[in-house]
Amino acid sequence: MPSYKAPLRDFDFVLNELIKVQEVLPGLPGYEEATQDIFSSYLEAAAQFCENELAPLNRQADEEGCNFDPATKSVTTPVGFKEAYKQFCELGFTALDCDPAYGGQGMPKTLSFPIIEMQCSANVAWSMYPGLSHGAYSAIHAHGTDEQKATYLPHLVDGSWTGTMCLTEPHCGTDLGLLKTKAEPNGDGSYSITGTKIFISAGEHDMADNIIHLVLARLPDAPKDVKGISLFIVPKFHADGSRNTVYCGSLEHKMGIKANATAVINLDDAKGYLIGEPNKGLACMFTMMNAARLGCGMQGLGIGEASFQGALTYARDRLQMRAMAGAKFPEKAADPIIVHPDVRRMLLTQKAYTEAGRALAALLALQLDIEEKHPDADARAEAADLVALLTPVAKAFMTDNGYTAANLGMQVFGGHGFIREWGMEQLVRDCRISQIYEGTNGIQAIDLLGRKVLMDQGQKLRKFTKQIHKFCQANEGNAQLAEFVGPLAKLLKDVGDVTMGIGMAAMKDRDEAGAAATDYLRLVGHLTYAWLWARMAEVAYTKLDSASDDFYKAKIATARFYFAKLLPEVESLKATIKGGAKPLMSLEDGQFAF
Amino acid sequence: MPSYKAPLRDFDFVLNELIKVQEVLPGLPGYEEATQDIFSSYLEAAAQFCENELAPLNRQADEEGCNFDPATKSVTTPVGFKEAYKQFCELGFTALDCDPAYGGQGMPKTLSFPIIEMQCSANVAWSMYPGLSHGAYSAIHAHGTDEQKATYLPHLVDGSWTGTMCLTEPHCGTDLGLLKTKAEPNGDGSYSITGTKIFISAGEHDMADNIIHLVLARLPDAPKDVKGISLFIVPKFHADGSRNTVYCGSLEHKMGIKANATAVINLDDAKGYLIGEPNKGLACMFTMMNAARLGCGMQGLGIGEASFQGALTYARDRLQMRAMAGAKFPEKAADPIIVHPDVRRMLLTQKAYTEAGRALAALLALQLDIEEKHPDADARAEAADLVALLTPVAKAFMTDNGYTAANLGMQVFGGHGFIREWGMEQLVRDCRISQIYEGTNGIQAIDLLGRKVLMDQGQKLRKFTKQIHKFCQANEGNAQLAEFVGPLAKLLKDVGDVTMGIGMAAMKDRDEAGAAATDYLRLVGHLTYAWLWARMAEVAYTKLDSASDDFYKAKIATARFYFAKLLPEVESLKATIKGGAKPLMSLEDGQFAF
Repeated sequence: MPSYKAPLRDFDFVLNELIKVQEVLPGLPGYEEATQDIFSSYLEAAAQFCENELAPLNRQADEEGCNFDPATKSVTTPVGFKEAYKQFCELGFTALDCDPAYGGQGMPKTLSFPIIEMQCSANVAWSMYPGLSHGAYSAIHAHGTDEQKATYLPHLVDGSWTGTMCLTEPHCGTDLGLLKTKAEPNGDGSYSITGTKIFISAGEHDMADNIIHLVLARLPDAPKDVKGISLFIVPKFHADGSRNTVYCGSLEHKMGIKANATAVINLDDAKGYLIGEPNKGLACMFTMMNAARLGCGMQGLGIGEASFQGALTYARDRLQMRAMAGAKFPEKAADPIIVHPDVRRMLLTQKAYTEAGRALAALLALQLDIEEKHPDADARAEAADLVALLTPVAKAFMTDNGYTAANLGMQVFGGHGFIREWGMEQLVRDCRISQIYEGTNGIQAIDLLGRKVLMDQGQKLRKFTKQIHKFCQANEGNAQLAEFVGPLAKLLKDVGDVTMGIGMAAMKDRDEAGAAATDYLRLVGHLTYAWLWARMAEVAYTKLDSASDDFYKAKIATARFYFAKLLPEVESLKATIKGGAKPLMSLEDGQFAF
Repeated sequence: MPSYKAPLRDFDFVLNELIKVQEVLPGLPGYEEATQDIFSSYLEAAAQFCENELAPLNRQADEEGCNFDPATKSVTTPVGFKEAYKQFCELGFTALDCDPAYGGQGMPKTLSFPIIEMQCSANVAWSMYPGLSHGAYSAIHAHGTDEQKATYLPHLVDGSWTGTMCLTEPHCGTDLGLLKTKAEPNGDGSYSITGTKIFISAGEHDMADNIIHLVLARLPDAPKDVKGISLFIVPKFHADGSRNTVYCGSLEHKMGIKANATAVINLDDAKGYLIGEPNKGLACMFTMMNAARLGCGMQGLGIGEASFQGALTYARDRLQMRAMAGAKFPEKAADPIIVHPDVRRMLLTQKAYTEAGRALAALLALQLDIEEKHPDADARAEAADLVALLTPVAKAFMTDNGYTAANLGMQVFGGHGFIREWGMEQLVRDCRISQIYEGTNGIQAIDLLGRKVLMDQGQKLRKFTKQIHKFCQANEGNAQLAEFVGPLAKLLKDVGDVTMGIGMAAMKDRDEAGAAATDYLRLVGHLTYAWLWARMAEVAYTKLDSASDDFYKAKIATARFYFAKLLPEVESLKATIKGGAKPLMSLEDGQFAF
C-alpha cells in the first residue's frame, strides 16, 4: 500500500509563490488573520492527520466497506472511521472555513482547499463524510432563515451533525425536472415529504449524532419541470430527539469509494422545513452543487497525487531490464524502472497534471475568497465570473486527468498494480466515480460551452483569456519563457477561433454545441494548464537565479514535458471539433444495431 | 446486467465480405472442409453457448471469486464454471483448431478467433481457463517430443486436462533474465524443479482432472540471462496418478477477472520434463506468448463489444433531458439519452473501435492460418511477417481501446454505471489487466518499434504499408471513398516519415526509441484501423448498390465517425513523437521528489 506524504513544499509554492495569496487575503475583511504562518501551522496539522490517521485506514476500509443492518436501518462505517472523524472534529477541521458566528474558524478557501486535497489523497471515501456536511452547511448558511441557521449550523460546524444532498431519484439524475418526491404542507410551517432518493453519499452512518438531509421535492401544484422544485431540510432526528421518518433503505454495491455509505433514502411523510423560496430549490441546491463540483475536481487531484507517490516509489525500487543506452546501476541485478523513458512518461504525466491541477485549485480558491469577501462589488463579480467559467473545467478536466493518472500509476506497477494489496487499483476505482457524479463530465462540458460561454456571448471567457493575453504580452521578450509563451499565445488564438466557429455552427444547429462540448472542455482545460505551467516556469526561473534548487529545476523540466507531451492533445481536439456534429448524428437509430 | 448477443452478422461481414476467408482457406491443405456453412454452424453453436451458458454466470462469479483452501491447497471455482466447462468440452470447442492427430477438429484460426471473442464478451474470467490450456497445447505441439505430444496433447485437446504458463516470479515479470527457479537433472531424463511462480492464471482449479504447468527454470550452470532459461512440463499429477510437488500457495486478490484463479505456484523439487532444447526455453515460451498476446487483444475486443451492447441498450431506454433541437419523443417524459450528441460520441467510439478490432482479428487469424498451412514458403513467410508486426499492435491497441470502450460504456450509464449490479463496472475492471499482462502495453510498443520495425530495417513495415499503398492507388479515382482514401494516404506517408525520423534519432540516442514507442504504436494502430475502415466502407458501398441495408449504411457512417472523431488523434501523436526523448529524460532522479 502506498504511504502518503502531504506535498507541503508544493502547497507553499502554489499558494505563496505562484498565486501569492498573501498579497490578496489581507485586503479581504475577515481574512486578515490568515497569515502565512497560520497557513503553515494548519497545513502541517492537516498533513499529520492525513498521513498518520486517514491514509492507514484507506486500504482496509475498501475491503470492509460499510455495513447496513436492515433491522435497525443503521449503517456501520469501517474500523477507525468514527475515531478519525472525532479527531478531525476536535482538531477543528470541520469548522475551518465556516462562519465564526456559528463557531467556525473563519479561514479562507485558499487554506481549506489544500486540506481537502490531502484528505482525498489519503482516504477519499472518508473525506466525503465531512465534505457533504460542508455542502449542507453552505446551503443553509446561504439560504436558511436565522432560526434555521441557529438550529443547524453550530452542529454542522463542530461536526457533531453531518449533512447530505438528496437530489437523485431512480429515474432521474441529470434531469431533475423529472423528480417526483412530494412535499405536502402540514399547516404548521413544516412539510410532509415522501419519496425515494438514491446515490446519497454519507446518507446514513455511525459517525455523528444526527444527519441533516437537504432534499429536493415538489410542493403541491408546483410547475412540472425544474421550475417546480423546492429544497427542504429533513433532519434524521428532530430538535426534541425524536426520530424522523427518513430512513436508509439499503446501501449500493459499488466499484469504489466502498467505505462511503451510498444510501437509498426513503422519505415516508418525513417532516421537513422549506429552505429558501418555494420552487427555487434548484438555485439553492446549486450553492452546494458548485462546491461539490470543485470537490470532485479535488478528488481527481488528490487521487492523482496519491497514485504518483505510489508509482514513483515503486519505479525507484523495482529492478527490471537495463537502460537502453546501457546499465545505469551495473552493481544491481537490473536498473530501477525509472530509467526507462516510457516509465518516465507515465510518471511525468501524473506529475504534470497533478501540479497544474493544484495550481488551478489554488487559483479558484482565491477567487472564491475574493467573491465572498472583497469589499469591491466589481472585484467580487469578476471573481464570480471566473469561478463560474472554470468550475466545470476543474470538475471534468481534473477528474479525467486524475483517472488517467491513477491508471498510469497502476500501469507502472505492472501486474502488481492489479493486486489489491498494493493499493494502486483502489485509486483507479475510487477515482472513477468523480467523472460521473455531481453532473457527469459530459454535463460539465455542456455547462461550460453552452451556459458559460455561448449563452453568455463569450463575456466570461474573454475576461479569462484577457488575463492570459496579458501574461503573454508581458513576457513577449522573455527568452527563457519563449518556449512556453509562443505555444500558449498560439493556443489562445486557436481557442478564440474555435469558440467563434462553434458559436456560428450552433446558431444553425444546436447539436453542434453538444457535439463539440467534451472536446471543447479539454481544449479550455489545456489552455488553463498551459497558462499555469508557463506561470510556474516563470516563477521557477526567478527563484533559480537566487538559489539553485531541484524543486525549481523540476518545475521547469515538468513545464517542458507538459508542453512537449501533453499539450499537443489540442491538435487532435481542434480537428475533432472541426469534424462537427454530422458524424455523430447521421446514424439512424436502427443502424446502431448489434 | 447487460445480456449478450453474439454479433453474428458482423462476423459474417468481416469473414466473408471483408477478409473473404473462403477465397483463401480452400487453398490451405487441411482447411478444405472449413466451408462457410461449417463456419456458420460452429459460430451459431458458440453463440448459443456464450449467450446462454457463459454470460449468465459472469456477474455472480465476479462477486463469488475463486476460493482457496489452504489445508488441501485446492481451489474452487465459482458456481456453474465447472459445468459450463464440461459442456464446452463436450461441444468440442477445446479441440476446435487443434491437430486431428491428437483428437482435434483441425479448424482454422479464422474460425476460432470469433469464438474466442464471444467467450471474452460473455465471461472473460472463464475464457482464460481454456485459453491458457490452448497455449500449453500450442507449445507442446510445436516443441514437444513425440512421446510428450502423445502423453499430453489428447488430454489438452479434449479438455480433460488444462494448462498454464509459469513465467513470472515475484522479482521478475518483464525481465525474465532475472528468474531464479532451478531445474536439477534427476539422471533419469526428468528434472527436479524448485522455485516460486506468481500471477499464474488458471493455476489451480476444480474444472479438470489434471493441470499441465509449463515452467521456465534454469539448468545448473546455465548462462545468467535470458539465454539460460529452459522450459519444462510439470504436471500436477503424474501419469501413474501420483501427486507432483507443485502446489498452489495462495490466490491473488485482484481488481478484476476475479473468477479466474490467479495463483502463486510453489515448486518444491517438483518433477518436470524438459521441452525443446536446453537454454532455449524463452523461444519455446514465445509460441505461447504470441498467441497469448493476441488473446489479450481479443479480451479488449470482446469486452468492448459487451460494453457497447450494454450501453446501447441503456441509451435507448433511459429517458433524460430533451434533444437540444427540441423534443424527439414528446409523448415520453423525456427523450432517450441516445438523442444527445455526447452520448452518441461515446457509443460510436465503442462501435468504431470494436468493429475495426474485429476486422483486425480476422485479418490476423487468416495470416496465422496461411503461416501454418500455405504450401508456398514465401506466402508463409509473408504471413508470418505481418503477424509478427501486428501482434504487439493488436495486443496493445485493442486492449487500450477496449478499456476506453469499457469506460465509455460505464459513463453512458451515469451513476448506475458505478453500481456493481449493472455489470458495466465489472467490464472496466476485467479489461484493465489486458493492458498489463503478457507484456505490458509499454513493452508491446518497444517490441513493435524496436524489434519489429527498427531492428528489421523497416522491412516488415514496408511490406505492410505496401498493401495499404496499393489499396489507396486502386481507389484513387473512387469518388465515394475519397473522403477516406485521402486521409489514409496522408497518414501512410506520415508514418513513413515518422518512422524514418525516429530511426535517425535512435541511432544517436537509443532512448529516442523508448520515448517514442507508445505513441508510435498508437500511430500504427490508427493506420491499420483507418485502412480497415476504408476497406469496410468500400465493401459497404458495393453492397449498398444491390440492397439498401441499415447494416451497410451504418458501416459507412461509422467509418465517417472514425475518420472525423478518432483518427485525428494522430495529429497529437505526431507532435508528441516529435517532442523526442529530452522532455522525458532531463529530470534528474532527485527532481522527481514529492
